[in-house]
Amino acid sequence: MKEFELIKHFFAEQIVKRKDVILGIGDDCALIQAAERQHVAVTTDTLVAGVHFPVETEPRAIGHKAIAVNLSDLAAMGAEPAWVSLALTLPEADEAWLKEFCAGVFELCEYYNVQLIGGDTTQGPLSITVTAQGITPADKCLLRSGAKAGDWLYVTGELGDAALALKHLQGQVSVEEVFTEQVMTKLNYPKPRVLAGQALKEYASSAIDLSDGLISDLQHICQASKVGANVVLDALPLSKVMRDTLEQQAAIELALSGGDDYELLFTVAEDNKVGMETSLAHAGIPITCIGQINGSEKITTTLDSKPVAISSRGFEHFSGKGPDNASDRQS
Amino acid sequence: MKEFELIKHFFAEQIVKRKDVILGIGDDCALIQAAERQHVAVTTDTLVAGVHFPVETEPRAIGHKAIAVNLSDLAAMGAEPAWVSLALTLPEADEAWLKEFCAGVFELCEYYNVQLIGGDTTQGPLSITVTAQGITPADKCLLRSGAKAGDWLYVTGELGDAALALKHLQGQVSVEEVFTEQVMTKLNYPKPRVLAGQALKEYASSAIDLSDGLISDLQHICQASKVGANVVLDALPLSKVMRDTLEQQAAIELALSGGDDYELLFTVAEDNKVGMETSLAHAGIPITCIGQINGSEKITTTLDSKPVAISSRGFEHFSGKGPDNASDRQS
Repeated sequence: MKEFELIKHFFAEQIVKRKDVILGIGDDCALIQAAERQHVAVTTDTLVAGVHFPVETEPRAIGHKAIAVNLSDLAAMGAEPAWVSLALTLPEADEAWLKEFCAGVFELCEYYNVQLIGGDTTQGPLSITVTAQGITPADKCLLRSGAKAGDWLYVTGELGDAALALKHLQGQVSVEEVFTEQVMTKLNYPKPRVLAGQALKEYASSAIDLSDGLISDLQHICQASKVGANVVLDALPLSKVMRDTLEQQAAIELALSGGDDYELLFTVAEDNKVGMETSLAHAGIPITCIGQINGSEKITTTLDSKPVAISSRGFEHFSGKGPDNASDRQS
Repeated sequence: MKEFELIKHFFAEQIVKRKDVILGIGDDCALIQAAERQHVAVTTDTLVAGVHFPVETEPRAIGHKAIAVNLSDLAAMGAEPAWVSLALTLPEADEAWLKEFCAGVFELCEYYNVQLIGGDTTQGPLSITVTAQGITPADKCLLRSGAKAGDWLYVTGELGDAALALKHLQGQVSVEEVFTEQVMTKLNYPKPRVLAGQALKEYASSAIDLSDGLISDLQHICQASKVGANVVLDALPLSKVMRDTLEQQAAIELALSGGDDYELLFTVAEDNKVGMETSLAHAGIPITCIGQINGSEKITTTLDSKPVAISSRGFEHFSGKGPDNASDRQS
């Protein structure tokens, strides 16, 4: 296992040195110092080769994504990312692979001033588990549970490009060559909405990051908040490549059910709408109002102001059929 | 992936509810509140099936061990365990397996009042990554780096039984049937030395937990502290089953190189020796003095007061040959 010991040198190459890290990598534990009157937000996500990313994904993208999906969870709480622990299981200690993987990890860590405080490297089938921790003021946190009837439903950025890229890779759709890099970047190098989350914690009543797909993640908000929501499908922010590549119905289905967007889905009370929109505009973060929360405990969708149905197998019936019970999609 | 969502229900069944957990499992992140003037100790360890435990290991033991090896790292810092995050990758959502696995996880968590604050469950080859966090006073921490020439070298408990159990499983040795359960328990249900670690943080100058094997872990202390050590092989605490099963040389080799003991190896200055021994005796924790730290930056071993040699391939030459350079064993 000598090679695996060498990996520690890769982990030691990070630049970020935070003052609140009392002891970094190298002892039995790291030691961190949380600030007074702050909460520490903790999240853990695993990426398994062949499940969460195609086996042939470039190592830099795997490193990036392992960090990004966790920072995205911190963003959804409005937390400031601070520390990550990285558990890497890989079949063999391939130096070139590791160099690229670590480049992906550290690029994102450096950008957000996040310090790697622990690493464990083991031999086995490729998978990466990151535990990320962030800091948030004790009284200001974005939870899933704060949405109220009447709140407006918003999403950052555009939806579905990552899922489109995956379908392109799988040969199910053909993205024009000029757009391929753009959608592949969305899939491989998702940008966690860290700044948006921090701005939103002043205004939003609830938030979640989009990892499973819009409807699925909206259900988490609705269940936690005991509310329902109507999504205006015409309003969904679809990229030019989505609109160029797919018919409207297919594009909307992908935007609703495709995962890996890592945008934030959030709700804002009427009173905070202007303040929020101004704040996010100043920060240069694109947002779109895509619907409204209601008291029904169901998720409904409308197109051209008419109700359309979604079902447990996605967005199936593009007709005037009455809205389905949201519980169909619970999984 | 519906089955995988169901797993969350297993994770939700824990009894422990800590006051410093502001928000448990169920949102994008957990929220914890670290006490003022305390440090948070963080450690991450992965167990891969077929690498860190035999594939046929009972699920309760896997759950126990995944928590135990991490609490052992906290113990080696003298930290009080508080929170764990669990990332579980498994080939299929087998309910019976999960029930037993969770029983193993929660038994240990309940014993130490540790709350599971996050879980991610993914499909893939069986592996478990736990991130454990503990609390320690800001000015009292057991590091690897505090050993000084003249300090006494101690170990808790007995050495080598887990390695003996593994050899028994692999058919390399034959443990008497009456002892089989005892050694298998040492392998499958290691007890992290949490209380010992907390008692030791008042007295010890350095500490590490024994996961890789005594010589290997002692080298971590020596390297971090820039010291050397002599280990008195006659003094190594070997269990009755070790002494009954193996010849002296083989038993000593196993105690030096076998991993998975999860005992604490620590150093104590002469002035703290009596205080430490009294404190640990009161706590009912068996300890053995097995040598002394010196300024040589080498690890040497003696038997019958004569130097004997160890090499990079373990404890090879049981002869009067001069002591080997410790750097041979660096890996």
